[in-house]
Amino acid sequence: METIILASASNRRQEILQQMGVPYRIISRPVDETIENGADPRTASVDLARKKVDAVVRDFRSAPAWILGADTVVTLDGRIYGKPSDAEEAQGFLQELAGNTHSVVTGIALRNARTGMIASHFDETQVTFSRLAAEEITWYVQTNEWQGVAGGYRIQGRAACFIERIHGSYSTVMGLPIRTLYSILRENHYQF
Amino acid sequence: METIILASASNRRQEILQQMGVPYRIISRPVDETIENGADPRTASVDLARKKVDAVVRDFRSAPAWILGADTVVTLDGRIYGKPSDAEEAQGFLQELAGNTHSVVTGIALRNARTGMIASHFDETQVTFSRLAAEEITWYVQTNEWQGVAGGYRIQGRAACFIERIHGSYSTVMGLPIRTLYSILRENHYQF
Repeated sequence: METIILASASNRRQEILQQMGVPYRIISRPVDETIENGADPRTASVDLARKKVDAVVRDFRSAPAWILGADTVVTLDGRIYGKPSDAEEAQGFLQELAGNTHSVVTGIALRNARTGMIASHFDETQVTFSRLAAEEITWYVQTNEWQGVAGGYRIQGRAACFIERIHGSYSTVMGLPIRTLYSILRENHYQF
Repeated sequence: METIILASASNRRQEILQQMGVPYRIISRPVDETIENGADPRTASVDLARKKVDAVVRDFRSAPAWILGADTVVTLDGRIYGKPSDAEEAQGFLQELAGNTHSVVTGIALRNARTGMIASHFDETQVTFSRLAAEEITWYVQTNEWQGVAGGYRIQGRAACFIERIHGSYSTVMGLPIRTLYSILRENHYQF
């Protein structure tokens, strides 16, 4: 199988590629990840995924084979929940997500090794949090799992204790929709 | 935190306890896991989970603290999909699951360290598989991921490439509903 360049330093995205058994290498370049409240998460996540791929392509005279970018946007009632800047903000996020169903959209962009074209897609998943007592939020914030992750929680960590159900794809919430990626790879004749 | 005895040798269930950060030890005793087609998966999974706990309790003069049992039942159209006995049966399972939505029920039973009572519950999750080409089924069967698992696939492995969406809890499909377990532990005053 051909190596895929992952244009993201996220551990969770690496785990998804490992789960698929796809060989990968990380080459990520900083891009401005700001998304304005009110922006369409579908468009915004796909645009950012493409920007991450483009940023890597620009750095190479002959761009490496497959390049994959992804971006995850968490929203509730039109408000965008980025990466919390501190414990207090993480706590505020959890208070707002508790007892509600929010949306997680992950956009992906894949540059085809042979054509140089970039294919992109997104997947959207609904996540329903249980109501949370103050002590549960405190307990969670102390784990530090909220650091560096959109929405301030990691579904593959202890936050799963608070999630009543999801409707969609678990890997979308982790940050890389495995089924969507698999389909795009197949459409682009990637050899598994 | 108090150690929980896991009355199951399943790696996936261990992973869920690790995800929760709960200390555990495995003590599992063989029980007859046969479920007849047509049985109610909810009742059957909870009954088997209790049987697994009882089998461990019986072996101790003073039963150890918390004991947790779990059992997972995969059904489609009233038919129960157990652990495939060989590659051919695994292939048949995947052919039937492909393009359909099946149900995964995991029952859990928890023996309370202080009261000796056993609390039980179940969670049900719907899993929608994409249509599958013959070569995709062959590819999957060759991974051997179907071995030893109800339904013949592991959602946390490459089968995730075939799953369009789930409605419910990912951990239920893995074999131990983390949210349900967390709630039962809290109700029984387990100290996190």
